[in-house]
Amino acid sequence: MRIIAILFCLLLSSTINAQDEKTLRTIYDLALTKSDAYENLRDLCKNIGARLSGSEEADSAVVWGQEILNDLELDTIYLQEISVPHWVRGRKEKAYFYNEKGKNMLNVCALGGSVSTGMNQFIKGEIIEVNSLDEVNALPDSIIKGKVVFFNRPMDPKKISTFSAYGSCVDQRYSGAVEAAKKGAIAVVVRSMNVRNDDFPHTGSMAYEEGVDSIPAFAISTNSADYLSENIVSFKALEISLKSYCKTYPDKISFNVIGEIKGSKYPSEYITVGGHLDSWDLGEGAQDDGAGVVQSIEVLHLFKLMNIKPKHTLRVVLFMNEENGNRGGISYAEKAAAENEKHLMALESDRGGFSPRGFSVNGTQKQLDAIKNWKSLFEPYEIHQFKMGFAGVDINPLKDDKICLIGLSPDSQRYFDHHHSDNDVFESVNKRELELGAASMASIVYLIDKYWLY
Amino acid sequence: MRIIAILFCLLLSSTINAQDEKTLRTIYDLALTKSDAYENLRDLCKNIGARLSGSEEADSAVVWGQEILNDLELDTIYLQEISVPHWVRGRKEKAYFYNEKGKNMLNVCALGGSVSTGMNQFIKGEIIEVNSLDEVNALPDSIIKGKVVFFNRPMDPKKISTFSAYGSCVDQRYSGAVEAAKKGAIAVVVRSMNVRNDDFPHTGSMAYEEGVDSIPAFAISTNSADYLSENIVSFKALEISLKSYCKTYPDKISFNVIGEIKGSKYPSEYITVGGHLDSWDLGEGAQDDGAGVVQSIEVLHLFKLMNIKPKHTLRVVLFMNEENGNRGGISYAEKAAAENEKHLMALESDRGGFSPRGFSVNGTQKQLDAIKNWKSLFEPYEIHQFKMGFAGVDINPLKDDKICLIGLSPDSQRYFDHHHSDNDVFESVNKRELELGAASMASIVYLIDKYWLY
Repeated sequence: MRIIAILFCLLLSSTINAQDEKTLRTIYDLALTKSDAYENLRDLCKNIGARLSGSEEADSAVVWGQEILNDLELDTIYLQEISVPHWVRGRKEKAYFYNEKGKNMLNVCALGGSVSTGMNQFIKGEIIEVNSLDEVNALPDSIIKGKVVFFNRPMDPKKISTFSAYGSCVDQRYSGAVEAAKKGAIAVVVRSMNVRNDDFPHTGSMAYEEGVDSIPAFAISTNSADYLSENIVSFKALEISLKSYCKTYPDKISFNVIGEIKGSKYPSEYITVGGHLDSWDLGEGAQDDGAGVVQSIEVLHLFKLMNIKPKHTLRVVLFMNEENGNRGGISYAEKAAAENEKHLMALESDRGGFSPRGFSVNGTQKQLDAIKNWKSLFEPYEIHQFKMGFAGVDINPLKDDKICLIGLSPDSQRYFDHHHSDNDVFESVNKRELELGAASMASIVYLIDKYWLY
Repeated sequence: MRIIAILFCLLLSSTINAQDEKTLRTIYDLALTKSDAYENLRDLCKNIGARLSGSEEADSAVVWGQEILNDLELDTIYLQEISVPHWVRGRKEKAYFYNEKGKNMLNVCALGGSVSTGMNQFIKGEIIEVNSLDEVNALPDSIIKGKVVFFNRPMDPKKISTFSAYGSCVDQRYSGAVEAAKKGAIAVVVRSMNVRNDDFPHTGSMAYEEGVDSIPAFAISTNSADYLSENIVSFKALEISLKSYCKTYPDKISFNVIGEIKGSKYPSEYITVGGHLDSWDLGEGAQDDGAGVVQSIEVLHLFKLMNIKPKHTLRVVLFMNEENGNRGGISYAEKAAAENEKHLMALESDRGGFSPRGFSVNGTQKQLDAIKNWKSLFEPYEIHQFKMGFAGVDINPLKDDKICLIGLSPDSQRYFDHHHSDNDVFESVNKRELELGAASMASIVYLIDKYWLY
């Protein structure tokens, strides 16, 4: 049955016609002239700002999401309750070392979920630089015990996709504290996940492990990391002082914000479009993932503007808690499974609001082939990448053998200049680039809704 | 003979092999790790800055170009003397009107080459808004006589390529003053060539015509243009006051800066790579065209780093005076013709230092087909556009029936946010995007040098 359905899909996919060309042209025209995405993003970034799960700002973002969806006059709007972690950074962190020039301040921030360095005190310790988790694991405990481990492996600039560079580097941020603590380290400092040299420390998620000491973990800006590294070479035994104020509170209640346009033909089959409403607590969560949120909302806005009734129920989901737990994404998939919902496709935008390049497809080869059949429709809009790949953290738990997960792939070169740092602000998003992304999302949703069957 | 040569080219083009894949990988690796392009651009933008033809800064840029090429230890470095216009803006321009709220200042600047409003005086006149040259031509003289004509047609946001939007809008900037003066207008104000709404006026070239009064011409920021337009609607007869201080001086001597790596097999056949060294006098000439200059230099740097001796003589040309006369480009082509030089290909980068998308080819269909044969080589680098189109102002005068002119096509969405305005600064250029462009240029040069015959 499934094979028949897919064959039918392929057949239908090949029937793209002049009408589809026209519809895509209208989608892009409207996105570039009548879109609310950019002003919605300004509102979210400038009037709410950073909105880490559990924060008051995250609560405000939930209300904001409902208000925006209300304006769209959707068929249904509701909240899905979830429990989220509640970690608070507290005051700005400090880090310094002394050399022959005197005191050198370093640009650092606590990694998300880290314990603090403790009441009113600095952690001080000799710093030892390593390049990888493996290197730590290979060193004898005696070398690491009582020291601060400095993970300084840079993102590989040679990788054309910066996400690929991130993927092969982020283990030191996520697991560095655990691996170093196993050897008796007292803290870790991790080079920021940033290809560029600048002064912004970039936070991000990390984990502790039961039975292993929870030690404070910091990110350090790429410039400070280079400076620190130079000094470690010249001053063999360099002592670093670190202070953080962060704290984890009991979990809080929060929500996914969900809106629907009921399907005209298959109302109990679903296409989900989403981004995540939460952000880290630095910057304004503009590229990560305010952009994805306003683009996802814009998909439904564009359907409304064009007066297109989708055949399947089109759901926008503003996921909560992608950054430090993915409880929104997990809960959404659990509820979908519990209620036996049929999900045809889910599309996520969580790679920034940059010029769109294509789609990253986590599905069957036949699904990818069917999408590739539409390549010529997308060519006028400079959309050229249609390949297998990861689609998105929030939608990933929906994965089964039927659903096609799709991630919007924008140009990735500048993403990590902003990601999880004070530099992730509204001004870094270009209005046209954001709108072109929204139009690309609406176009793929339009085609799949029209031609695919569950 | 030519057909045989082209057939031979096509044959050779299809022999791309694993070695070419490796070489391109090396080119991109080196560009992303060992390039001088970004630091060269910083130097040009921050230590010299804006460098309009005829200015002291343009003189400094010529010296700068020689110094940079000297460091590359090329086979030949020389200057090509040209005569350039010398227009000076003088003090910051002023424009205002009164409404019920009082005095409203507008963000304006003189267009390049404009006459001033005259010694110590404002031009004051009733403003009349039009959308096109045609609209002016259709109006009776009596409506326009003694007035200030305000050309307010925006760049079309629906065009995916912003260059295409620019192309269909820039006639009002270039010819607005002449057409309005023919009807007795006393000045023109032209909406800035900018898709975005902001406060930067964007200058650019304009022309006068013999026998037609030379009237002062201004650009107005998009925000000011919208505000002015609203007020024209409410206050039917709105008087605007304008002041500019610009002046044209006698022509000056300046130079194209040229460097060569002698061809190992065909030393008297040429491949030219270039950008323009001059810029407008606002901002720092970073995207336009510092980026193209440092990328062009980088092509030769990459050949040096890889120790590749090109078969044809590889010339980098830092053209002078693209912005207001193209005398560098014209002189270069004239000299090439006079000396009977054989030019195989010329490549220009003058569309900003953004993520490269492909190449715009002004040549024969067979040349384009030969380039398209290399498509798969470029795919890992997200280069996907290979199409007929304009290649570049500086290299355009080289056009004959043999040469293939090629323009680097970066993503165009943000270009006009910066173009010809105070917003064209070094900070707007992303290091990786710039480097990927340089690598793409070096790659196409490498392949054409290897496989093509004159």
